Amino acid sequence: MNDMEKIHIDQIKNNIGKQITITGFVQTIRDQKNIKFFLIRDISGVIQVVITKDKEEAFKNSSGLSLESVVEITGLAKEEKQALGGFEIAVESIATLSLSDPELPIPVIEKGQQEETDQSIRLDWRWIDLRKEKNTLVFKVWTVMEQAFREYWVKNNYIEIHSPKLIATASESGSEVFEVKYFERKAYLAQSPQFYKQMAMAGGFEKVFEVGPVFRAEPSFTSRHATEFTGYDTEISYVKSHYDIMEEEEKVIQYALEKVKEKYGEEILKVFGREVVVPKIPFPKISMKETKEILAKMRIKSEKEGDISPEEERKICEYVKEKENHEFVFITEYPVSVRPFYHMHDEEDPKVTKSFDLLWNGLEVTTGAQREHRYDVLVAQAKEKKMDIEHLQFYLNFFKYGCPPHGGYGMGPNRMIMQLLGLDNVRDAMFVYRGVNRLTP
Amino acid sequence: MNDMEKIHIDQIKNNIGKQITITGFVQTIRDQKNIKFFLIRDISGVIQVVITKDKEEAFKNSSGLSLESVVEITGLAKEEKQALGGFEIAVESIATLSLSDPELPIPVIEKGQQEETDQSIRLDWRWIDLRKEKNTLVFKVWTVMEQAFREYWVKNNYIEIHSPKLIATASESGSEVFEVKYFERKAYLAQSPQFYKQMAMAGGFEKVFEVGPVFRAEPSFTSRHATEFTGYDTEISYVKSHYDIMEEEEKVIQYALEKVKEKYGEEILKVFGREVVVPKIPFPKISMKETKEILAKMRIKSEKEGDISPEEERKICEYVKEKENHEFVFITEYPVSVRPFYHMHDEEDPKVTKSFDLLWNGLEVTTGAQREHRYDVLVAQAKEKKMDIEHLQFYLNFFKYGCPPHGGYGMGPNRMIMQLLGLDNVRDAMFVYRGVNRLTP
Repeated sequence: MNDMEKIHIDQIKNNIGKQITITGFVQTIRDQKNIKFFLIRDISGVIQVVITKDKEEAFKNSSGLSLESVVEITGLAKEEKQALGGFEIAVESIATLSLSDPELPIPVIEKGQQEETDQSIRLDWRWIDLRKEKNTLVFKVWTVMEQAFREYWVKNNYIEIHSPKLIATASESGSEVFEVKYFERKAYLAQSPQFYKQMAMAGGFEKVFEVGPVFRAEPSFTSRHATEFTGYDTEISYVKSHYDIMEEEEKVIQYALEKVKEKYGEEILKVFGREVVVPKIPFPKISMKETKEILAKMRIKSEKEGDISPEEERKICEYVKEKENHEFVFITEYPVSVRPFYHMHDEEDPKVTKSFDLLWNGLEVTTGAQREHRYDVLVAQAKEKKMDIEHLQFYLNFFKYGCPPHGGYGMGPNRMIMQLLGLDNVRDAMFVYRGVNRLTP
Repeated sequence: MNDMEKIHIDQIKNNIGKQITITGFVQTIRDQKNIKFFLIRDISGVIQVVITKDKEEAFKNSSGLSLESVVEITGLAKEEKQALGGFEIAVESIATLSLSDPELPIPVIEKGQQEETDQSIRLDWRWIDLRKEKNTLVFKVWTVMEQAFREYWVKNNYIEIHSPKLIATASESGSEVFEVKYFERKAYLAQSPQFYKQMAMAGGFEKVFEVGPVFRAEPSFTSRHATEFTGYDTEISYVKSHYDIMEEEEKVIQYALEKVKEKYGEEILKVFGREVVVPKIPFPKISMKETKEILAKMRIKSEKEGDISPEEERKICEYVKEKENHEFVFITEYPVSVRPFYHMHDEEDPKVTKSFDLLWNGLEVTTGAQREHRYDVLVAQAKEKKMDIEHLQFYLNFFKYGCPPHGGYGMGPNRMIMQLLGLDNVRDAMFVYRGVNRLTP
């Protein structure tokens, strides 16, 4: 076989009448004694291949093949109206690269109207589950989305950091962290790069971003939570308020969704039935106080003062969608009581913070704020929240030797993907899910 | 002050004769009673500012300032031959955004010929250390380098994955992993995404890359080791041998170094005295056997059969540099005895693996190989290496239901940066270093 002719399945249409080679998984087998039809799947698509008895060697080689085996096929690319997509390959030769066990634990193609295999079983066999068109598409879209976010940041002179995940003291909140045996002592897994991106501000980096794993030892079993997931984090110096940060976030989200729509808009519509909407700037912004007033008028019960429940998140998004035809909304100025000690308090109303959450189609995807960069004020705020000052001292020191005013946000790309594609569950938006009861595969 | 006029210091030359605003750290203070000269530093450079007594308010506001305080300055941008860089700002107003403690624990600007502060102390105060021009440049270069690697991968249809760092069983080698308390059980921190990028191959992803932290519980104190660092990992399906992988790696390295040279070549030369050399393709390749023969002729003592020591790495690189004028060399076909069980054995010489390391200017920066994708062969190889098959079963299962032949490599960007900039120590090539005795800041 000739390496030169190896092509992807989506290129067959451009190679009609030529001998070509493809590789892929055997998706279906239809054996009609003197003629066999296979569907072969690679990363780019699916094609019908036909093996006739006169190609003796190929016919023989194809006889023991099981579903999901991996093959290399050479043959003539042809138009064929009857075939899926209108093309097929008349096989000259076929080689088995990997023979699958005939007993597949889960199907790649669900039969008929049958409901999809239970998620927990699918997660056990995640690599087989990932072969489905929709699951592969999740990560193709992720790749473009993440690269677009980064493109925006790099173009705008953000510096990339990779901050340590092993830390000496339980981070921000002081709870819900995993403990690590670190030689003769204990370490913890970082809940977020919060302290370290602020360290970069004290280091004069002005604008930074980080993409990396975050760890949460929460015994949470909802469709929105995981014990390990990916975080996008940025921090920006010399902001005047949290409004500067929201403005910056709007721009990067608009940029990223534009890129996603350009590359995968059609496929997302086809596979997930979702239209990618590139959001208009500025995004709607509603203070927490006003949000509660609107929800009260809508007769939605307030579950917690100064904060909103998942149900309230959905309702306020519905309100904004109807009123402003926008999928996004910033909820701003959360009360001090529900925010971490390092959020800056509002100069005019010291009961609220210069903070925000961003909701997308009913789900929180971001938390952000201007941070308190004045050492004395920060120490006072930490004490108010009954934080352990001694353990925080390494962090408080960042603000002792000159630190620009700054703020930033943390974003959850798993949740972004969920909302973008309309997935029910964050588990389908992670390459491999980690939860309280799941550490495998 | 007007937001519109806020510029970076490197833009002053384009704003001569205008009122402008800058923000930054006070790097030096020269107080001559009726006139004061400061050097102000932002992410883009350093500028002299002059405060004269006739600007009463500004003169007063500048009086209590300590080194490394953060200020916002408005004034007239002027040419001034006597000043650093040929420009200065005649200050109209100055506001203190953050006052530094006058007792700086380490200097930002070392005085005269004095040796730099001891590294361990610098690491204690890493955020102050990062303010130095050369340390900031490390991460500007990193940002461009990483984005360039990713650009190549994304353009070439690699899919990005974020694999879990929390895993159920001690990974590949079975040793040197950190143990995590995971609710009522134990988990471990992944030493590399090796098993998961192979899982993506079994999932039909064909080409993947991952950028993320890797963890090594090695009690190692060398200048090249850390307990946590960043890994670049790729894996590619349908390779014919490890030569396909090396070819792909050459291309991405060439692409990335081209981009780095374009953007920061001059600055790297100025600050680090290093010329960025864009390597020619193909890179030199020498088998381990031949490497040992060459080293023997150079009278370099072989410390270990089938593997090379840091000293031997340096010597073979010197040899290649002299002979082929190339900074890179692939050492290929390592013996089975020194490679992990999943490296594919050579068909013609089953004592060696289809593997390689990449050395750059005397330092190993990559390990790669074609992997064994045939279930039975893989199980046999694992048994030969006395691996615990039961704990490996989750991984072995990846190869049971069809898996394309594949291979890949893992690369250390911290070491890449070390070699690119000629740093002595990997600790200077990490945002925040983690070692056996270092978990802070």
